[in-house]
Amino acid sequence: MTTPSGGISGEPLVIFAAGGAVPFEVATAAAAAGRKVFVLALEGESDARLAGFPNAIVKWGQIGRVEKLIDAHGGREIVLIGSVSKRPDFSSISVDLGALRYLPRLIKGMIGGDDTVLGNLVKGLEDRGYRVVGAHEVAPDLVASPGHVAGPRMTDADVLDAGQALAAARAIGLLDIGQGAVAVGARVVALEAAEGTDAMLGRVADMRAEGRLRWSGRRGVLVKRAKPQQDLRVDMPAIGPKTVEAVVRASLAGIVIEAGRVMIAERAETVAAAARTGTFIYGDDGRIAAGKQ
Amino acid sequence: MTTPSGGISGEPLVIFAAGGAVPFEVATAAAAAGRKVFVLALEGESDARLAGFPNAIVKWGQIGRVEKLIDAHGGREIVLIGSVSKRPDFSSISVDLGALRYLPRLIKGMIGGDDTVLGNLVKGLEDRGYRVVGAHEVAPDLVASPGHVAGPRMTDADVLDAGQALAAARAIGLLDIGQGAVAVGARVVALEAAEGTDAMLGRVADMRAEGRLRWSGRRGVLVKRAKPQQDLRVDMPAIGPKTVEAVVRASLAGIVIEAGRVMIAERAETVAAAARTGTFIYGDDGRIAAGKQ
Repeated sequence: MTTPSGGISGEPLVIFAAGGAVPFEVATAAAAAGRKVFVLALEGESDARLAGFPNAIVKWGQIGRVEKLIDAHGGREIVLIGSVSKRPDFSSISVDLGALRYLPRLIKGMIGGDDTVLGNLVKGLEDRGYRVVGAHEVAPDLVASPGHVAGPRMTDADVLDAGQALAAARAIGLLDIGQGAVAVGARVVALEAAEGTDAMLGRVADMRAEGRLRWSGRRGVLVKRAKPQQDLRVDMPAIGPKTVEAVVRASLAGIVIEAGRVMIAERAETVAAAARTGTFIYGDDGRIAAGKQ
Repeated sequence: MTTPSGGISGEPLVIFAAGGAVPFEVATAAAAAGRKVFVLALEGESDARLAGFPNAIVKWGQIGRVEKLIDAHGGREIVLIGSVSKRPDFSSISVDLGALRYLPRLIKGMIGGDDTVLGNLVKGLEDRGYRVVGAHEVAPDLVASPGHVAGPRMTDADVLDAGQALAAARAIGLLDIGQGAVAVGARVVALEAAEGTDAMLGRVADMRAEGRLRWSGRRGVLVKRAKPQQDLRVDMPAIGPKTVEAVVRASLAGIVIEAGRVMIAERAETVAAAARTGTFIYGDDGRIAAGKQ
């Protein structure tokens, strides 16, 4: 584990927070490590608990306002964290003057995948003198450890399924398409693109209910992994208690995540849900992916 | 185009027919070319129009009966064609004695993807002295020709989308996962695995309705292509009028298929639906996939 990024003479860590529980956990971890925190909460997405930290609410397009707020608080280090449930409607965004400086780079980035946009935002921020750090550096305990994490042990069939799904998720990750896959009976049955993990798992449950896929009991594996070329400072994959619930509804046996490169949000709740429902969670250090497990 | 496989002294072409319109079209094309036809129709899946040809209804697991029927009609050449909407419930199949001979090979094949099972069925049939031919050999007019097939011309943005989706479909095809992908705005938003093309397109429509994806008007491309390593005698991909309708419901601009390796079922209806709805259909000869179009 790395040391949380150090606070230079009490300068706050700026947490740009989108949706989900992870931004709150990152803010809590940074504060627990003695770091001052200033939260920029994305309107309509961010966790209400973030109101407990010094904060400001910002909208898409207000990059100029974001810079002013950061500078007013003396922050130089920024974490970009959280999920975005809806793609911003760029036609309805009112862009402020500061944002105009970023636009040429961002528009160029939008020709590529999602992470290219975010990657270009990171470059834009760094060009302006800010340092973008990863949530995994600020809150290393959030990241999956290698080996057995929770629930029952994996069977040989689970390992076979995980190997297939890891290979598939790697292939679509290399193309910047997605970070998740489901395999059952050593066959990949669902790949995640824009729909997100929960929708992919809902589809697996539907295919089983409709008889398009057949198996009895709990069988098959959800894999989540970072894209091989991924900058972990943006769009690091995550699982949480809801992922476990969706895996149970899909009658899968468990979850394999890439150790060190996937976050476990609300870890205590996630581990408890896995134990309660008999769902394994395992952090692959590369051995399952390589067929050596 | 190749010459339809020749009828040796009036020996019938045996068409093992699963679901969809294509088996009927293959039977019609073979009969139109002067070939005798004998149809083995899969119970619960096959087109009612096949009753117009000499036929027998068979169930999963009746390979012994299938062999007897083929031999009784003097057939040596077999086409395996059509879609299977539901995976057979292997626990409820009553397997006949003839099928037992195929089982070791088929069970071994089930460790791999769908086409491995079918590929092993082909090998099993060939070991027994039958010749398995492709629908594209019997009915070459069913296969997509290169270039513009129907509807409006593609724009540069469409070509960019098609290139992304072709690359994605190739990657998942290499892993034996699927044959379809959708890209919008040069970003792959959906990948087809076990759910099938219609379900994938329904998902794209849903994501747009929910605001997870945003675009106005008709934009984006559905790609269907064969797996690079695919034996075209089994599981050749196909589009038809329903594909065009689903593409319209998803607000996509059109369809790009791999020329020579994807079938167009009910071609007249498909082309008419494309023209009526302003949906392009284009057969890529490799130039879009290579970024040379």
